[in-house]
Amino acid sequence: MRDRYFEDWAVGERLETASVVLTEEQIVAFAREFDPQPFHVDPDAAGASMFGRLIASGWHTTAVTMRLLVDSGLFGVRGAVGLGVDGLRWTKPVYPGDTLSVVAEVLEKRATPDKPSGVLHVRMTTRNQRGEDVMTQTAAILALRREFAQP
Amino acid sequence: MRDRYFEDWAVGERLETASVVLTEEQIVAFAREFDPQPFHVDPDAAGASMFGRLIASGWHTTAVTMRLLVDSGLFGVRGAVGLGVDGLRWTKPVYPGDTLSVVAEVLEKRATPDKPSGVLHVRMTTRNQRGEDVMTQTAAILALRREFAQP
Repeated sequence: MRDRYFEDWAVGERLETASVVLTEEQIVAFAREFDPQPFHVDPDAAGASMFGRLIASGWHTTAVTMRLLVDSGLFGVRGAVGLGVDGLRWTKPVYPGDTLSVVAEVLEKRATPDKPSGVLHVRMTTRNQRGEDVMTQTAAILALRREFAQP
Repeated sequence: MRDRYFEDWAVGERLETASVVLTEEQIVAFAREFDPQPFHVDPDAAGASMFGRLIASGWHTTAVTMRLLVDSGLFGVRGAVGLGVDGLRWTKPVYPGDTLSVVAEVLEKRATPDKPSGVLHVRMTTRNQRGEDVMTQTAAILALRREFAQP
């Protein structure tokens, strides 16, 4: 993975990550640890819920989305720091066996003179194997400026 | 844990969860799986970063926050469905050994006649052992209305 600085991001830039399958085992394991609601951990209770079957925790979808983005190299070898997220929407359920991938689009970048980092606004859309958006969000990300980087 | 319906939520209601310690092992394990950036997984690289030491992935903080809220009983035994989040801000780093707890405040509730669920807006503030806010967010949550509940 290469280094990547604020200057390397371009407004309008668009990246599509690799994809990953979410298994029932992974969905249940994540939810047992972090979101043990019946429709995430118990197939019988999930069957009686409005979803009709197990669905992934929305926080599992955010975590898997982050992993796909990190692996894509978008944040570079040193990483980039998330300041916050707006417009996070879980638009479709994620079911066991679904394959997720992410599209990232750079909406805006802003730097202040003398500040070592600039702020990027990036829209991230997580999709399933049917091309449906399952989650959307717009993140504010802090990225180091090249001239302030230490060797 | 008791059942809990849309009607059981009151605007202005405020709940404080139990607390939990995040260990270095947990922070590194979560980040290795979901957010393997150097300042989350590698103590040496983290020491050279702007943080000076390991910090938790922001997505780990969201996941732990969810667990504290579920365990508090706020969502009831059947659970409640997250539609989305706005204003998610990671306002302070979370370090190994930090103790987190969450305050939830009901801002607004809205139901539409004949719809089986209503929408709640809940502000969630995650704090550390020094009383500092480390993360804030406002969630939109779908909760079943009592008259539509199946026995």
